[in-house]
Amino acid sequence: MNKEKVLNFELNCPIPINQYERVLLAHGGGGKLTNQLIEKMFFQTFDNELLRKEHDGAVINIGDKKIAFSTDSFVVNPIFFPGGDIGDLAVNGTVNDIVCCGAKPLYISLAFIIEEGLLMEELWRVVQSINKAAEKAGVKIVTGDTKVVDKGKGDKIYINTTGIGEVYPGVNISPANCMAGDVIIINGKIADHGIAIISKREGLAFETEIKSDTAALNKMMEDVYKNSKEVHVVRDPTRGGLASSLNEISKSANLGITLFEEDLPVSEDVKGACELLGFDPLYVANEGKMLVFVPENEAEKVLEIMKSNEYGKESTIIGKVTKNDPGIVKLKTTIGSTRIVDMISGEQLPRIC
Amino acid sequence: MNKEKVLNFELNCPIPINQYERVLLAHGGGGKLTNQLIEKMFFQTFDNELLRKEHDGAVINIGDKKIAFSTDSFVVNPIFFPGGDIGDLAVNGTVNDIVCCGAKPLYISLAFIIEEGLLMEELWRVVQSINKAAEKAGVKIVTGDTKVVDKGKGDKIYINTTGIGEVYPGVNISPANCMAGDVIIINGKIADHGIAIISKREGLAFETEIKSDTAALNKMMEDVYKNSKEVHVVRDPTRGGLASSLNEISKSANLGITLFEEDLPVSEDVKGACELLGFDPLYVANEGKMLVFVPENEAEKVLEIMKSNEYGKESTIIGKVTKNDPGIVKLKTTIGSTRIVDMISGEQLPRIC
Repeated sequence: MNKEKVLNFELNCPIPINQYERVLLAHGGGGKLTNQLIEKMFFQTFDNELLRKEHDGAVINIGDKKIAFSTDSFVVNPIFFPGGDIGDLAVNGTVNDIVCCGAKPLYISLAFIIEEGLLMEELWRVVQSINKAAEKAGVKIVTGDTKVVDKGKGDKIYINTTGIGEVYPGVNISPANCMAGDVIIINGKIADHGIAIISKREGLAFETEIKSDTAALNKMMEDVYKNSKEVHVVRDPTRGGLASSLNEISKSANLGITLFEEDLPVSEDVKGACELLGFDPLYVANEGKMLVFVPENEAEKVLEIMKSNEYGKESTIIGKVTKNDPGIVKLKTTIGSTRIVDMISGEQLPRIC
Repeated sequence: MNKEKVLNFELNCPIPINQYERVLLAHGGGGKLTNQLIEKMFFQTFDNELLRKEHDGAVINIGDKKIAFSTDSFVVNPIFFPGGDIGDLAVNGTVNDIVCCGAKPLYISLAFIIEEGLLMEELWRVVQSINKAAEKAGVKIVTGDTKVVDKGKGDKIYINTTGIGEVYPGVNISPANCMAGDVIIINGKIADHGIAIISKREGLAFETEIKSDTAALNKMMEDVYKNSKEVHVVRDPTRGGLASSLNEISKSANLGITLFEEDLPVSEDVKGACELLGFDPLYVANEGKMLVFVPENEAEKVLEIMKSNEYGKESTIIGKVTKNDPGIVKLKTTIGSTRIVDMISGEQLPRIC
């Protein structure tokens, strides 16, 4: 670029060009750089009240109905991994994003970007897996698109799913609804998905095979939504893990969050793998977990409902929302100290979903 | 694959593995192979009545409203080309698909798959172009997703847009509604988009620069839908060109289509480029054209409405629907002979949108 162009561009471009001349992997990692790109470039450009809600999706009014609308592209590598594949991941991921808007997922669109040379058998396996996942979740695939790119311009297959759901009457989920005193429930062990992917990708073998937790949580959450109108925030801690999701919520709500380390469910295998690989499980992606924020007096009821679902048996309270330390997530460690759980700045695990 | 696996797979996989062991570029070209993949693998697996309509999108009932829902991924190469870029193309393409369902486009989701190393300046140009196109079309971008893939696993940027629109009251558009006697209107010259892309990609220079016709046609079609309840089919002849769209419609409706060569609008520049490159303009992609099927007695009115729009000034009747030759598209040539315009079988122009 010549000098004038640089100047012109810098006047306009919200991302400092001298700092980031090119897009980095970390811009897609779910941490600070992703947030900077989304906030400064996308939100400021496409500014509108629906986008501003900072949900996992948008809630729009159609006639007298409230409709949730959410999109996700899946670029996971490898496409087949213990516990799932890019197909069921793509269905479950979008189903869960619709659920996070307080809605019942109904319809899904499906768009493939296939790299020339993909084995037809692999495509067929993915298609069958998508169908099985959609049937299990009770959603219909109603429209789609297929593109093929030249060899070396993709990586086997990328999938976009976009979902439509109907918001449950009386349910109003938003990070802004988070209140001091809310307790935070999670439906089971963290970090399984990310560790399953990285193990498969790197060819690591642990004593027990660690499986992705990919699952559609709409039925579990339907029971919650139908029986409690006091659910404040629901979020699936995927890319960037528990730490990133909680940081986003605490910043949106301008409240503090305290986690109790001893209550955090992590399997021994995942703990071991994280130690070996140098990962913090708080930052590792989940694909079958929900964070549910409810007032303390509602917690027992919601916990019981969640526990009665196949994906919620290990549901437990892991933290609470505080007035103190707005925008900050803290961890009370098992030895009694407190540390700040910041948003990750770089790229921990690329192409995890 | 071992013998048993091949056998098992062949029993199940709807695409003959001995014929196509791997996905080819042509499976994404919009012709026969694309149709085979979509019909035999996707439709048969995800079978449901909404998918079966073979629309550019699905029409679903939400409360007392009919909602159009359509998805498209854009992988065009190069991402900047005369007349547009991947950004406005992604907005206009999905807007037009919603329009083809007889609906007013309202909301769009936006999902990026960015190749690591994309210049931040290029991303910023694309984002601004998306915003300008959305503002011009009057649609809101309400939710999104950003993924970054490693260098060499993408090609600068791929974009998925998925749209939601509200079907105009009393309007019912479907290939199945096509009737013998319908005339076919198009809103201007064909093949501009495909030739603009290929010229830029191959570094060809023609006397005049050929520009893509990318445009959002929702306002032109809104005027049509509000003033005529007798529009039967609306289709944007993108990938695979006029020939592929008309073949799909004639097969869906089980009726014949006759085109009149002398009425087909093609610019002299595009004609020249097609001759030079060995392309048939009937198979070259458009991104700002609509095929509108109406009964003959409604044609004058609809033509006038279309002509009053900035993108419809050159609207003209190019053919008619016949009872004879069901499923076949014929061209009456200027010299008086008739030839069959078949669906393309291979790949004419990969990554055109």
